[in-house]
Amino acid sequence: MYNIIKDLFPITRSLSGNGNRQTLNYLKKNYLDELKIHEYSIADNKSTYDWETPYEWNISDAYILDENGCRIIDFKNNNLHILGYSESIDVTIPFSELDNHLYSLEDDIDAIPYVTSYYKKRWGFCLTHRQREKLRKNPEKLYHVVIKSNFNENGSITYGELIINGYSDEEVLISTYICHPSMANDNLSGVAVATEIAKYIYALPERKYTYRIVFIPETIGALIYLRENITHLQKYVKAGFVLSCIGDNGDYSCVHSPYNNTYTDKIVTHVLKHITDNPKEYSFLERGSDERQFCAPNVNLPVCTLSRTKFGKFKQYHTSNDNLDFVSEEGLKGGFEYVKTCIDILENNNIYKIKTVGEPQLGKYGLYPTISQKGSADYTRNLTNIIAYLNGENTILDIAEILNVPFSSVLEIIKKLKEKELVTP
Amino acid sequence: MYNIIKDLFPITRSLSGNGNRQTLNYLKKNYLDELKIHEYSIADNKSTYDWETPYEWNISDAYILDENGCRIIDFKNNNLHILGYSESIDVTIPFSELDNHLYSLEDDIDAIPYVTSYYKKRWGFCLTHRQREKLRKNPEKLYHVVIKSNFNENGSITYGELIINGYSDEEVLISTYICHPSMANDNLSGVAVATEIAKYIYALPERKYTYRIVFIPETIGALIYLRENITHLQKYVKAGFVLSCIGDNGDYSCVHSPYNNTYTDKIVTHVLKHITDNPKEYSFLERGSDERQFCAPNVNLPVCTLSRTKFGKFKQYHTSNDNLDFVSEEGLKGGFEYVKTCIDILENNNIYKIKTVGEPQLGKYGLYPTISQKGSADYTRNLTNIIAYLNGENTILDIAEILNVPFSSVLEIIKKLKEKELVTP
Amino acid sequence: MYNIIKDLFPITRSLSGNGNRQTLNYLKKNYLDELKIHEYSIADNKSTYDWETPYEWNISDAYILDENGCRIIDFKNNNLHILGYSESIDVTIPFSELDNHLYSLEDDIDAIPYVTSYYKKRWGFCLTHRQREKLRKNPEKLYHVVIKSNFNENGSITYGELIINGYSDEEVLISTYICHPSMANDNLSGVAVATEIAKYIYALPERKYTYRIVFIPETIGALIYLRENITHLQKYVKAGFVLSCIGDNGDYSCVHSPYNNTYTDKIVTHVLKHITDNPKEYSFLERGSDERQFCAPNVNLPVCTLSRTKFGKFKQYHTSNDNLDFVSEEGLKGGFEYVKTCIDILENNNIYKIKTVGEPQLGKYGLYPTISQKGSADYTRNLTNIIAYLNGENTILDIAEILNVPFSSVLEIIKKLKEKELVTP
Repeated sequence: MYNIIKDLFPITRSLSGNGNRQTLNYLKKNYLDELKIHEYSIADNKSTYDWETPYEWNISDAYILDENGCRIIDFKNNNLHILGYSESIDVTIPFSELDNHLYSLEDDIDAIPYVTSYYKKRWGFCLTHRQREKLRKNPEKLYHVVIKSNFNENGSITYGELIINGYSDEEVLISTYICHPSMANDNLSGVAVATEIAKYIYALPERKYTYRIVFIPETIGALIYLRENITHLQKYVKAGFVLSCIGDNGDYSCVHSPYNNTYTDKIVTHVLKHITDNPKEYSFLERGSDERQFCAPNVNLPVCTLSRTKFGKFKQYHTSNDNLDFVSEEGLKGGFEYVKTCIDILENNNIYKIKTVGEPQLGKYGLYPTISQKGSADYTRNLTNIIAYLNGENTILDIAEILNVPFSSVLEIIKKLKEKELVTP
Repeated sequence: MYNIIKDLFPITRSLSGNGNRQTLNYLKKNYLDELKIHEYSIADNKSTYDWETPYEWNISDAYILDENGCRIIDFKNNNLHILGYSESIDVTIPFSELDNHLYSLEDDIDAIPYVTSYYKKRWGFCLTHRQREKLRKNPEKLYHVVIKSNFNENGSITYGELIINGYSDEEVLISTYICHPSMANDNLSGVAVATEIAKYIYALPERKYTYRIVFIPETIGALIYLRENITHLQKYVKAGFVLSCIGDNGDYSCVHSPYNNTYTDKIVTHVLKHITDNPKEYSFLERGSDERQFCAPNVNLPVCTLSRTKFGKFKQYHTSNDNLDFVSEEGLKGGFEYVKTCIDILENNNIYKIKTVGEPQLGKYGLYPTISQKGSADYTRNLTNIIAYLNGENTILDIAEILNVPFSSVLEIIKKLKEKELVTP
Repeated sequence: MYNIIKDLFPITRSLSGNGNRQTLNYLKKNYLDELKIHEYSIADNKSTYDWETPYEWNISDAYILDENGCRIIDFKNNNLHILGYSESIDVTIPFSELDNHLYSLEDDIDAIPYVTSYYKKRWGFCLTHRQREKLRKNPEKLYHVVIKSNFNENGSITYGELIINGYSDEEVLISTYICHPSMANDNLSGVAVATEIAKYIYALPERKYTYRIVFIPETIGALIYLRENITHLQKYVKAGFVLSCIGDNGDYSCVHSPYNNTYTDKIVTHVLKHITDNPKEYSFLERGSDERQFCAPNVNLPVCTLSRTKFGKFKQYHTSNDNLDFVSEEGLKGGFEYVKTCIDILENNNIYKIKTVGEPQLGKYGLYPTISQKGSADYTRNLTNIIAYLNGENTILDIAEILNVPFSSVLEIIKKLKEKELVTP
C-alpha cells in the first residue's frame, strides 16, 4: 500500500482533470483491471442536484518569478503551491498586490496549506508563512506571476467504480476520494486501503454481498455517483464505508451516521472496541467527508467514515506536512485490518441455533473436561457462554456484544459447533 | 409585574371570599378585560368530586387585646396573623389557654407562619415565635380574643378564566393560584407572570394554540375547574403549565409530570437547559401545587409546574418573609422569559424537510464561504448541522436537542432556509 | 432449617443412589408428606436429551490402608474423600502410583476438595494437601486401596417433586439440588430453605400460583425434569427460582436470566435492593447451577438463581470447609426471607386504580392532617405518592420501583385504601 501512495503522490489531482484520469489508470493497470473509469459529461449535466457542475480544470504550469527571473514559487515543486481551480494569469505586480492572492498558515509557518476555490473564479498561490513574511519585507518589489490553466465546459468529471459480485442482492458501498493532490494520509491512504481491500474481497472463497468500491472526487463526485445510482443504492446497500485518512499511526476512529442506529454503526463500534484500547467514535456532528452526502436526509444510506486519525484532528491536515513521512506501511496495515474486520463481520454475521434442549453434553464431543473440580469449567467458559445465547435470534455479532469478546472468537467456536453438528443455521 | 404584586399584596385571599373577587376584578380592570370571573355555587355543589366544597369564608376583623386594651396581634397589620378559615370567637381567656390556638415557627422565630384549617372548624392566630415566647412568660395573663368571620353556605367559590383563541383546536393550559394571602412569591408572582404572559399571547401575530389561562384557588379550585371542563381538557390540551413561586432570583426549576414523558416535559427540560447553567428538575414525587390534580390518574393532563425556587425549597416559604423584598422585577422577568420560551416553542415547533438530495450548494445562496481552507467551514457549522437533520421527521425541538443548542437558534436558521426556498414544511 | 442440614449432612449423596433416596425420604417423613419421590429408569432412558444418562452409583466402603493396616483415608470419616462415581478397586500399589489418583488443593492445604467424574470411569480419593505432601515423602511405600462401589444400569435416578395448587393455572418453579454429599451451604442450605418455603406456601390463606418445588440432582436431574415436563413448564411457569448456597451470612446475590428481562428478574432485583445495602446481581455469564438448563435457548424458562454468597465466591466452596460451621440459622433465615419476599410479591402484585378524579380528600378518611402548615404533608407522603401512580396500569411492584420503597410498604397502604373503598382492582 505504501508503494501505491508513493507512486500516486506527485500527481496533480483535483475535482476533475487529467491527474484524476492518470490516478485511476494507474490503479486499473497495476491492481484492479476490472476498474471501470467513468467520464461524467459536464455539458450534459450542467447541474448535479442542487450543485452547479464545475468545469474540468487542468493546469500545465504555475510559478512566480522575481526581478532576477528566479522562480521563487514553482507549482512543479509541490502542487499544493497552486490554489485549486485557479484561473490563468500572466502579470507583473508588486508584492503588495500579489499578497492578496497568497495563502499561508500563521500557526504552522513551515507548511504549505491546501486551499481551493472551486465555485468562484480566483487565482492564488499557497506558500509557507516563513517565505511569505520574508517577501513582505519588500512590498514594492515586482513579481511576474504565471498560471497556465484551463477550464473546459465540454470536459468531464472522472471517477472509478469497481463492482465485485456476491451471491445475494445486497450490497456494501466502499467509497474513497481521489480529488486531493499531494497529500499522503488525506487521502492517498484511502485510495491505497480501498485497493488492497478490493484485492482481499476478490480473494474471498465466496461473497454474500456485492461490493461497490468507488474512487470519486469528494462532494461533487459523491453527488454525481448518487445521481446516477441513488435508487439502486437505496434499495440494496446494507452497509457503507467512506475511507479517509486511514494510513497514519494514530488512534482508530469513525464518524457515525446521523442517528448512530444503522447496521454499519453497530459493526464499526464493535470493531473499534476490539481493535484498540482507545477508540474514537465521532458523532455525525463532526462529519466532513462524503458521509455528508451519503447520509443526507433525502439520501439516507447506512454509511460511516473510517479513519485512523480523523480529518482535522492531526496538525499536518491539509498541509504539505501530510507527506510520505506521515503515513507508514504499519499504519496502512492497521487501516486495512480495520476495514477488513468490518467486511469479515458482514460476510459471516449469521444466525445459528443450538440444537439441544438444555446444554449439550460437551464432554462427549471432547469439548469439556470429564472431571469436575474447582475451576475446571473456566477454560470452556467462552464456549458455554456462546451456546447459552445461540437461541436462533441473536446474530454472531449480538453474541459477541453480549459476551464483550471479538466477533472472530465467537465465529471460531461456532465453526467447531458446526463440525459437531450441534447448531443449525 | 412587580406593580401587580405590590397592588395585590395587602388583599386577604383564601379559598373563597371577597378578597379573591377583589383580586380578579383588579386584573380584569387593569390588564385583562376579557377575563371571565366565575362564581361556583356552593349550595348547588355540596361536593366536588371526592371533596366537600368548603363554605365561602369572609373575615372582617381579628385581634387579641391584652389587659390594657392593647392590640398585641391585629389581623389588619398582616393577614397571615389569622389561621385561614378561622371561625368567629369573642372570649377572654388566660394565655395558657390561648396558647393552644397559636401557631409559630421555632426555627424561624421572627417570621409569622401561614397556616390554614379549611376542612375542620378551628380558630387560631399565627405570630412570630419571639412574640409567643415573650407572652408565655405570663401564662395566667388574660387576653380578649376577637375574630369576626363568616361562613356562607349559600356563597360561592370564585375563579378567573381567560380564553385566547388560536387557529387550531389544540389548547395550552396555564394555571396559577390566587388563594394565598399576603405572600409575594407564593403566589402573587404566578398571578403577575400569568397576566404578563396573557398580554404576550394577545400580542402574537398569530396563534396555533388556544390558550386557557386560569386563576383559581389551589386544590379545590383545580378540582372545580376540572369538574366543569375535564372532557374538553382531556381532548384538547396538548401542554399545560402551573405557575408557582416564579418571581424570586433563585434557580429555575420544574416539577415534571408523573412519568416525565409528555410533550410539556420535553419542552420544559429543553428550556431549562438553556435558560440556566443549574436547572433543577424535580420528579412528580416532589409535587405540591395543582399539578397534583391536573396529573392525577383519572385526569392525566400533560402538565408541569414552573418555578424559580420551587415551593418548599426557600426558607421564606409560607411565612411573612415571603414579602415584597423577596421578589424582584428581574426575578419576575426571568420567570416570564421561562414561560414565554415554552410558548414560543409550542407555537413554532414544526417539521421541515430539506428539498435537496445531498447537501445544497450553500455558496450559491451566500450561506457558505467560496474558498475552502482549514477552518473555513466552522462558522457555518450550525447551519449545515441543522440541514443534516431536516429529514421531514424531526421537529425543530428534536433538532435543537440533537445539536444541543437553543430552539431559537435553530428556528432562526430555518427562517433563512425558508427564504431561500430550501425547505418544505 | 439448621436441624435439617445437621440431619442430612452425613448422608452420601450423588447424581443417584440410595443416599438421595434417604435424603428425600427424610424430608417426606418429617416435613413434606405430600412430597412425591420419582424414580427415573436408566434402562428406559439411556439418554436424556443430548446427555447419556449415568448409571445408578452406590458405594459401600472406600479406604486406603498403609503397610501397618492403618486406614490413612477412610470414606466413612468424610464422604468427600471419595472421587464421586469412582469404580471399584482393590489393589496394593506404591504411593507414586497412588498419587495419580489423588486430588487435593495446593492453595487450601487443610481442606478436602469435592471432585467427581460422572462421565468417565475413574477411581480416586480426595484428601488435604497437607496429608498428601506428607505421604509424598515416601513414594515407594505400598498402600492397599479398596473401593467397593457399584454401577447399576437397571437402576434409576431419584428426585422429589412437590406440587401445591393455587387458584390460577400459572405456576412458580422452585428448584434445588440434592446431589452434593457432605457440604452444608452447597447445597443442604437450598434443601432446607426450599422445605421451609414449602411449609410457608402451604400456610398461605390462599394462593394465586401453583408451586412446583423440585429436589433434583444438578444438571442431569434438571434435564430429566425438563424432559418429563417441558411443554407444561413452558406454558405455565411465570417465574422460577433455583436455590443454591443460601444459608451462609454473606451478601445476598442472584444470577439473572440470560437477558435479565423476565418477571423473575424484575422481582429479584427489587427484593435484593431492599433486603441488603450491598446486593450482588450477577449476569447469566456467571451462571453455574440449574439456571444453566432452565434458561438454555430451547428451554427458556424465566428462572433466576438465588444465593447468599454465590457458588464459587466463597473460599470454602466445594471443600470440606463448607461444613456445619459455615451455615447458621440466621443465615438460613435471611435466605428464607429472600425467597419468601419474592413469593409475597408474586402473590400480591396486582393492579389497582384510584377511583377519584383528582386526589381524594384524605382528611375525610382520617388519612391526612386537617391543618395545613409547613411540613404537615410529609408523613403522608408515601400514601399520596402511591395514589398518584394508581392509574390502573401500574402493578404494585411498578409503583414500589417508581417510589423506590419496598413492595410491602406499598401493599400495606393499598390495603388501607381498599378498606376505605378508594381503589378498584
